[in-house]
Amino acid sequence: MAQVEEQVSNKQVLAVSHITGDPKQTDMYFHTSTISLQLPPESSDSVLVKNLYLSCDPYMRGSKRTDRKNIFYSFSPDSPIVGYGVCKVLDSKHPDFKKGDLVWGVTTWEEYSIITMTDQLFKVEHSDIPLSYYTGLLGMPGMTAYAGFYEVGVPKKGDYVFISSAFGAVGQLVGQLAKLMGCYVVGSAGSKDKVELLKSKLGFDEAFNYKEEQDLDATLKRYFPEGIDIYFENVGGDMLEAALANMRRRGRIVVAGMISQYNLDEPQGIKNLVNIVFMQIKIEAYIVFDYYHLYPKFLETVLPYIREGKITYAEDIAQGLESGPAALEAMFTGRSAGKQVVLVAQQ
Amino acid sequence: MAQVEEQVSNKQVLAVSHITGDPKQTDMYFHTSTISLQLPPESSDSVLVKNLYLSCDPYMRGSKRTDRKNIFYSFSPDSPIVGYGVCKVLDSKHPDFKKGDLVWGVTTWEEYSIITMTDQLFKVEHSDIPLSYYTGLLGMPGMTAYAGFYEVGVPKKGDYVFISSAFGAVGQLVGQLAKLMGCYVVGSAGSKDKVELLKSKLGFDEAFNYKEEQDLDATLKRYFPEGIDIYFENVGGDMLEAALANMRRRGRIVVAGMISQYNLDEPQGIKNLVNIVFMQIKIEAYIVFDYYHLYPKFLETVLPYIREGKITYAEDIAQGLESGPAALEAMFTGRSAGKQVVLVAQQ
Repeated sequence: MAQVEEQVSNKQVLAVSHITGDPKQTDMYFHTSTISLQLPPESSDSVLVKNLYLSCDPYMRGSKRTDRKNIFYSFSPDSPIVGYGVCKVLDSKHPDFKKGDLVWGVTTWEEYSIITMTDQLFKVEHSDIPLSYYTGLLGMPGMTAYAGFYEVGVPKKGDYVFISSAFGAVGQLVGQLAKLMGCYVVGSAGSKDKVELLKSKLGFDEAFNYKEEQDLDATLKRYFPEGIDIYFENVGGDMLEAALANMRRRGRIVVAGMISQYNLDEPQGIKNLVNIVFMQIKIEAYIVFDYYHLYPKFLETVLPYIREGKITYAEDIAQGLESGPAALEAMFTGRSAGKQVVLVAQQ
Repeated sequence: MAQVEEQVSNKQVLAVSHITGDPKQTDMYFHTSTISLQLPPESSDSVLVKNLYLSCDPYMRGSKRTDRKNIFYSFSPDSPIVGYGVCKVLDSKHPDFKKGDLVWGVTTWEEYSIITMTDQLFKVEHSDIPLSYYTGLLGMPGMTAYAGFYEVGVPKKGDYVFISSAFGAVGQLVGQLAKLMGCYVVGSAGSKDKVELLKSKLGFDEAFNYKEEQDLDATLKRYFPEGIDIYFENVGGDMLEAALANMRRRGRIVVAGMISQYNLDEPQGIKNLVNIVFMQIKIEAYIVFDYYHLYPKFLETVLPYIREGKITYAEDIAQGLESGPAALEAMFTGRSAGKQVVLVAQQ
């Protein structure tokens, strides 16, 4: 009887049976179950957490033809959505985590989660930084920016750097790291407000609204009369075509994603790919999981800049788990005014 | 009067006023001029050579839209064709070269040449190897194979390696280096004879005639049921499309060229490029000039293999400067039975 008394209610955001392409609010529904706040004795290596922040990220899409090799799955029918978050440990059967620890990593969209796949759980060691940053600037998107820019992009001082989706969770940091290295940095975004913030808040040299440009090749020629050394690629399609026409010799295209292509029945053919031959271009796609061993080095680099105010970050924090589905949809439609986070609970 | 007596006749192969795309015999003509076999005293750093072998290489094309950034120029109107060759030094005002030296590098299609751009001239130090090899296996194509395979491809033992244009001057060596490293190696070529030679003479595990295949995607799936780790790319277009559909996770596409695309009015759009995101693929184009500093290391690696008979090479040697235009055309139409060379003179 004692065990029954320990059950608490657990509000969850679940996925409908099939989600195609960008998720919409109607692809998710709420359900309230119950959960014990103590792990059963046999649950070795598991961690029970209270979810504080949940992260809305562009990889959280339904499956499409081009996704068949995608290794991320956020949606299983009638199961809580899987995604990154910041959590507080309430109970632990894992030697690396103890009650009271703050962690970030892969969790589920509900008030309380039992995390069994703990290989992608990191302890929050620096709590002077806003906790929500561990879904973005100091979490998976931040590591994506860091690994892509330094390890794949191999930047040099003075490089000409172009970033698409520059106001996204990854692009914001790429641009600031590039500026700190002494690069010339231009970003593209999808609204006038984002363009302004890129320049005023994030220190980009230039930014433009791609929706207002008729000829992206001409746009890039205007911002990069000398050409582009590093193109940090998040979108694919026409923007990639234009970038390929403007790369400098031995330029590098760092491919974090090609979000314009995922929902097409057939991806767009890229004609300027042949240009890589004449300009000795490298195009490299990567995945952050292959670089998580660099996380301590990443913190060492980025934390001082954050504390000195030399790196900042724009967030759009939706209040309450109830706002989760709308927040996720907003991120995909470009309405989020910064890295989209959902605040589930205070510590 | 003494100087006049030293003039000798110098047969030359010249280019017509404009060459577009793959050169044809009719794009070249012969002319006999005269030349002094002694350099004038003021010609500092120049070298006067007798051309022994001339090389026919795929970069020797006329200019097209897609070539506008091409940095190679073989044809100038009514001038001798520019290309790689093996030569004997007859006179030298350059401190690094002396009369009697054998050299390889960029020369011109005539009996005797004055070489002023000596930064791409290498001394032949190992004359126990057939001299003609310095136009191919031990020359620019060999270095292209070595740099591309090792430096760009970053191969590991057991890798699945696919090479297009595998019987070409570069592909032959890539395949043999890959076999020596313990890779599984499949090559494509354009005739039954070449396919047979790839397997019997060059030790490829498998080879196929791309002209006989209806569905290159299915062909690659047949030869690579586990997928491809390294695609050594010489052709582009449909073959690249098929390779992109069959790459393994963290696969590398080493781009030495995309010869199927250069003569098109508009290059083919590559739809499967988006696959690189899901499989973390690197596509890197490179140029051999950036790797010539590795030439001594290259010789150290390859010379012992040649002497032990572990690396071999198929050549198609046309006899006499007169056969040059036909040999160059033959290379572009795929009729050469190995690396196409022109024997101009014995030492």
